Amino acid sequence: MPVAALAQTNQPPRDAQPASSNVQGGQYPKIDPERRAYFRIVAPDAKHVSVSLPGGDRMSQGTDGVWTVTTEPLAPGFHYYSITVDGAAVSDPASQSYFGTGKMSSGIEVPSPGEDFYLPQDVPHGDVRAHYYFAGSTGLIRRCFVYTPPGYDTNLAARYPVLYLQHGMGEDATSWPRQGRAGFIMDNLIAAGKAKPMLVVMDDGGITPGAMSGPRRGGGPAFWDKFGQMLIQDIIPMIDSTYRTIPDRDHRAMAGLSLGGTQTMEITQAHLDEFAYIGVFSAPFGFPQVPRGFNGLLGDPAAFARQVKVLFISYGTAGDLASRGTLRFHKELEQAGIKHVFYQSPGTSHEWQTWRRSLYEFGPLLFQDTHDDHR
Amino acid sequence: MPVAALAQTNQPPRDAQPASSNVQGGQYPKIDPERRAYFRIVAPDAKHVSVSLPGGDRMSQGTDGVWTVTTEPLAPGFHYYSITVDGAAVSDPASQSYFGTGKMSSGIEVPSPGEDFYLPQDVPHGDVRAHYYFAGSTGLIRRCFVYTPPGYDTNLAARYPVLYLQHGMGEDATSWPRQGRAGFIMDNLIAAGKAKPMLVVMDDGGITPGAMSGPRRGGGPAFWDKFGQMLIQDIIPMIDSTYRTIPDRDHRAMAGLSLGGTQTMEITQAHLDEFAYIGVFSAPFGFPQVPRGFNGLLGDPAAFARQVKVLFISYGTAGDLASRGTLRFHKELEQAGIKHVFYQSPGTSHEWQTWRRSLYEFGPLLFQDTHDDHR
Repeated sequence: MPVAALAQTNQPPRDAQPASSNVQGGQYPKIDPERRAYFRIVAPDAKHVSVSLPGGDRMSQGTDGVWTVTTEPLAPGFHYYSITVDGAAVSDPASQSYFGTGKMSSGIEVPSPGEDFYLPQDVPHGDVRAHYYFAGSTGLIRRCFVYTPPGYDTNLAARYPVLYLQHGMGEDATSWPRQGRAGFIMDNLIAAGKAKPMLVVMDDGGITPGAMSGPRRGGGPAFWDKFGQMLIQDIIPMIDSTYRTIPDRDHRAMAGLSLGGTQTMEITQAHLDEFAYIGVFSAPFGFPQVPRGFNGLLGDPAAFARQVKVLFISYGTAGDLASRGTLRFHKELEQAGIKHVFYQSPGTSHEWQTWRRSLYEFGPLLFQDTHDDHR
Repeated sequence: MPVAALAQTNQPPRDAQPASSNVQGGQYPKIDPERRAYFRIVAPDAKHVSVSLPGGDRMSQGTDGVWTVTTEPLAPGFHYYSITVDGAAVSDPASQSYFGTGKMSSGIEVPSPGEDFYLPQDVPHGDVRAHYYFAGSTGLIRRCFVYTPPGYDTNLAARYPVLYLQHGMGEDATSWPRQGRAGFIMDNLIAAGKAKPMLVVMDDGGITPGAMSGPRRGGGPAFWDKFGQMLIQDIIPMIDSTYRTIPDRDHRAMAGLSLGGTQTMEITQAHLDEFAYIGVFSAPFGFPQVPRGFNGLLGDPAAFARQVKVLFISYGTAGDLASRGTLRFHKELEQAGIKHVFYQSPGTSHEWQTWRRSLYEFGPLLFQDTHDDHR
């Protein structure tokens, strides 16, 4: 069948597979080996239906009332999308939905041939725990997610370092465990002996549109001052008293993606006594000035390298909105002779595949500069 | 303002509050003190929009293109819903979505005045862990959720009894922790000294439409034979080797809701050597025959009471589709002098508030008939 006819009918080829992000038993969307997605949406009375993915605005209605489309080839990894039906932007009940872009978005997982570092494998698995706690600074019961590595429940004398890992704007504490697959990435790194067993704490950074109101003050917008305060006053002490951590700066890291990367830079600069490892994935702005940043430490490369065991910065090469700022900061650091790790995710944009890869690159660098081994 | 004008504008009264099931910062839907919900959906080009809740088909479009409706007063508790836009049944990006009715459904939480047993309170909280494991009988990596009670991580010598708790048709392992709020219910019961600390394991019973294909055989549809086999061969041994359980029948319970209640009856009858406590919430069918059921044990009330420490059956009084069958079974048990616990949830239907209350009633009955105390 010629390509034009295929496109017209939007009939998926026989080797197209249901997306792994579909609900149980869901057949559509399907994805073919060229990474085109095939959608089928029942909307008999609609005048216009579209899917917010490249090519998804070319939907057409069949005589059976079903709207279909074949998208352009999609980038590997995870993409948010929504469906628009006669002007209403809504979510697809056939796909898992995820808190992202400030709402319950649909998501589609596009396979990435040759990459399996973020997929569940037959290796020992840590648990990802939903943990509820009372945060005194807010007077509210909050939830975070805590990854405890394989062996945590059996090696009862072992204590572990901790990575605090933050999501981006319009996301929340669920984003790294779900969209980011942080648990599988850590399982695979630890099983391969590439990363030390560690806890990963994923909390809500308060950077959804609904939570970002409030006055700005000198040091930055109030919404992340608030999270920084909560992290130091409530979350870290709670984690250190609830789980078997090694409660010092040499065994504590912080990383974040996008606006969570900006938060990471703000919070770690203000609390260098708390964190020795820093990861900044696709931060759109907020890079410290060289040499004044980090309380002047960026003016003293040797002192900086003693204090900050790893400074990791990254972005994706395919149009990541954070590329310019990150690249400029990288060059400034390089010129000033400041030790850091720079990573570019090939062919991905400001999206989860960039951040999954960033975690996979950052994880092995953590807590290696210590004399103890808690394996 | 007269009621008619209010209904026409669908303007929520000042004391209406955003539903707790809304996404972060989401203002709509709102719920007023009479439990009416107010929806606002932007769909400028649509000809017809409706919400699948009582009264939700009366939506009207304002001059701003926004569709609004005020529902009838809703029953307290959790309800699935979807939005239909010009014939397309879709999900609401403004509400959390939940796997239910075989798809990602929107959900709305309606307050229940005077009931807080399922709400997060300032009491010690257990963790709800996403746990991944390899199931030999299927060759697949599976996920379950495991509630570990407060103290599990500090009382390292303690061992705990286990409740296996199953969802209904078109739902999955996420349903009890999310819609059911099983963690908060157990936290509150344990904090009040009403229930013994226990683990609660919530796995996927394989009863979504997509998973229920396959041949029937003598003992019942193949889809729950398969889950029963997996529970006995894979899940229970995995839980007993991963967590600090008391691995015997006197410290093991099984319960389920709706079709998960039917599964519970099938599986516990076939494996009475594994379970001493049984909970059947709103099972639509599958009740054992008296006196032949439970391998004839229902013909010997004294022997049954020795074997089955608690048989708990329940339904909601407001039109629960399970009411007739459950009531008949209750009467048969009563006439035969079989010890059991019968619970009717007042004013609720075949829905989550019935099952939350059922867990709250069932939990305190568990593992009391033992001579040890693992508190």
